[in-house]
Amino acid sequence: MTNQAKLNLSPLAGMAEWLPSEQIEFEKFKNLIRETYALYGFSPIETPVLERQEILLAKAGGETEKQIYQFAKGDSLLAMRFDLTVPLARYVANYQNDLVFPFRRQAMERVYRGERAQRGRFREFYQADADIIGRETLDLRYDAEIISLIAATFGRLNLGAFLIRINNRKLVSGFLQAMKIMDAAEVLQILDKAEKIGEKKMRQELSLLRLDGLEIRKIMQFAQIRGDISSVVQALLRLDLANETFSQGIEELQTVAQILPSLGVPADSYTFDCSIIRGLDYYTGTIFETKIVDAPALGSVCSGGRYENLVGNFAKTKMPGVGMSIGLTRLFFQLKEMGWFDFTQKTISQIVVLPLTQNLAEVLKIAAQLRENDIATEVYLQEAGLKKKLKYANDLGILFALFVGDDELATQTVVLKNMLTGEQENLKLAQVINRFNA
Amino acid sequence: MTNQAKLNLSPLAGMAEWLPSEQIEFEKFKNLIRETYALYGFSPIETPVLERQEILLAKAGGETEKQIYQFAKGDSLLAMRFDLTVPLARYVANYQNDLVFPFRRQAMERVYRGERAQRGRFREFYQADADIIGRETLDLRYDAEIISLIAATFGRLNLGAFLIRINNRKLVSGFLQAMKIMDAAEVLQILDKAEKIGEKKMRQELSLLRLDGLEIRKIMQFAQIRGDISSVVQALLRLDLANETFSQGIEELQTVAQILPSLGVPADSYTFDCSIIRGLDYYTGTIFETKIVDAPALGSVCSGGRYENLVGNFAKTKMPGVGMSIGLTRLFFQLKEMGWFDFTQKTISQIVVLPLTQNLAEVLKIAAQLRENDIATEVYLQEAGLKKKLKYANDLGILFALFVGDDELATQTVVLKNMLTGEQENLKLAQVINRFNA
Repeated sequence: MTNQAKLNLSPLAGMAEWLPSEQIEFEKFKNLIRETYALYGFSPIETPVLERQEILLAKAGGETEKQIYQFAKGDSLLAMRFDLTVPLARYVANYQNDLVFPFRRQAMERVYRGERAQRGRFREFYQADADIIGRETLDLRYDAEIISLIAATFGRLNLGAFLIRINNRKLVSGFLQAMKIMDAAEVLQILDKAEKIGEKKMRQELSLLRLDGLEIRKIMQFAQIRGDISSVVQALLRLDLANETFSQGIEELQTVAQILPSLGVPADSYTFDCSIIRGLDYYTGTIFETKIVDAPALGSVCSGGRYENLVGNFAKTKMPGVGMSIGLTRLFFQLKEMGWFDFTQKTISQIVVLPLTQNLAEVLKIAAQLRENDIATEVYLQEAGLKKKLKYANDLGILFALFVGDDELATQTVVLKNMLTGEQENLKLAQVINRFNA
Repeated sequence: MTNQAKLNLSPLAGMAEWLPSEQIEFEKFKNLIRETYALYGFSPIETPVLERQEILLAKAGGETEKQIYQFAKGDSLLAMRFDLTVPLARYVANYQNDLVFPFRRQAMERVYRGERAQRGRFREFYQADADIIGRETLDLRYDAEIISLIAATFGRLNLGAFLIRINNRKLVSGFLQAMKIMDAAEVLQILDKAEKIGEKKMRQELSLLRLDGLEIRKIMQFAQIRGDISSVVQALLRLDLANETFSQGIEELQTVAQILPSLGVPADSYTFDCSIIRGLDYYTGTIFETKIVDAPALGSVCSGGRYENLVGNFAKTKMPGVGMSIGLTRLFFQLKEMGWFDFTQKTISQIVVLPLTQNLAEVLKIAAQLRENDIATEVYLQEAGLKKKLKYANDLGILFALFVGDDELATQTVVLKNMLTGEQENLKLAQVINRFNA
């Protein structure tokens, strides 16, 4: 037994790695999102995977901090980023004099969290973020724009009907203030998981806190407010709460709602929902989550919101922002598990050329012409019989093989074979090119 | 003085980070390479940044091993990949039953080396690799195909004339064997830096080794053999060496040379050059380097070659391969330093829309139509006067601004302003769309 037998060749637990056929679909996913973000004027920015520990720790906390991969190298204390937002904050603070505000950036990169390994949870995964950062101020309309970007992105991803559920943190905090709730943090936590645990369990958990029956009834009532903007606003006003923050929340929700239609967001793709909380983190205004209607088990596939100051700890200027994030690796994995993709093709090539002549030079010239016409082409160059060459094309799961033999060279034609139907056609090369570029 | 003043906001030493205008050019670079590789049928594969230490250490050695970022997390000993070839070897060995051979893959990802920090040297950098891996055998013609991919890629990158210098390791080792050179490793090292140190210094360094005058003369003669295939082969034969490996090297060089023209590689873009060594690493046959003719100081911008077995240590099956790699971050940095790029535009948007009316809804509909026609569009949504809005467009360095005021809404037109010339035109939206999609 040699050394090699002892090496574990699988990727580390929690690290996604795809076969060629899977990676091809994942790349389509990534490209589509990147292009949609670009269409809305979000320029790509990359930051290093490694940051100074002090930078990441300045913004992390609780569970996240424990999950950070950190180590020393030479004199430096290094850490791998756990999200794309903290590096964005550092970037914006560091280059603030070179950037144009409102600053629009997209990032599609991998982040690292040493979570407990679990099926469908990843320790290395892609996030696809889009954010708009203002200097001192950022108009509320940008909140609506980010929501419109979510709608555009999921429309193009073609995952069926989706629903963006919109809320505002000021409504939540204003509500808790106005009600003078003592266990506010605990109530928030229960609200945050309201959908998951259901109404009955929610009522039970609330009853364990320092709340009276009226308070519990009101909290339940608040958490159930959802629908179009006018019915939501009416329901909120019916709660009859005198609180400045609460009123501001209503106003902000209305402002955002007002311009969503002009931004082209389909009416059935969003709703307002007071049970949306987005954890206990840094959001301060508009918040949103997105679910795929036919796949509710996926949970929120895209979420985000408004934060009052991105660069707190990093710079003195106040920089409010609004952004969204898609957990891309997890989404792809889940869709894959659901059988969403057709993983037939194991190559990015559109045509595989199989030489059936000793005159390889002429065959290679044909391949060169296909590529010149933007048709992704590979040539099988091993010495082998027809059977082995055909097996190669079959194994690739490619739709088209192009045979070039001496007969074809003599008549200046090629044979295009549809590997799925078995149909073969004798064509001029120009005809093949036209067919692919039609 | 607060906490924030103490944080160092710049990226870690050796980690590239670009401003938006720079990143836009870098993305063009990356996309062009990715697309060219795809056109030649190289499918993208991603592997994790983190690998088991034992996997990386099984293939690293010497300097590289010292440079690896490695650490423990929980029970695992982790390391950040230092190249894309070792992860490829693990991938191919691990999934060998799911892959189709010859297996063609591209990868454009970041790798990590804790080198001494130095201007223009990076600790995190992109490599853009393309490799073809055979199972048991891989035809020599694939060596030529990889060379043709280099030519296609640098042709499209449009960096002016380039020269691919081709050699074969069998020539080098056959030569040293036939000459019965004692200090073969030292001679290799001197050959490897021959171009850098020049003829005189090379002769000096050789004279310090256990070599006689005739041997030194022959080594100098060998290192100076370059040119087209027939003159190189003639010169090699004139050395009059009886060595099997040497003869095989000549034969392989001829086979590769023979099909390069059919692959569409321009005759002036490659040459054969016996001074090309490619370090002391794992290459066993064809080797090549690429230089930009007008920028020799860049050194080799793309190199690679044939290796007899990719998966030694990892699998029992022999898997020969041939591949190439572009050190993308370094190349981009150097070209940037040379003033190669025009970094005017700080946004990926093609049009910035400036609303000059209170009827924002109509303006947003115009932006939505531009995007529907694949024109990357952003809208300035802050409350601000005309001057501030114009400043935004100017600061972005964008070529086109679109003004929409009440007059334009009344006449169903827009004003398209060329920000460079100052020229303004009153147009129908359809005319604007046609102009961009022409």
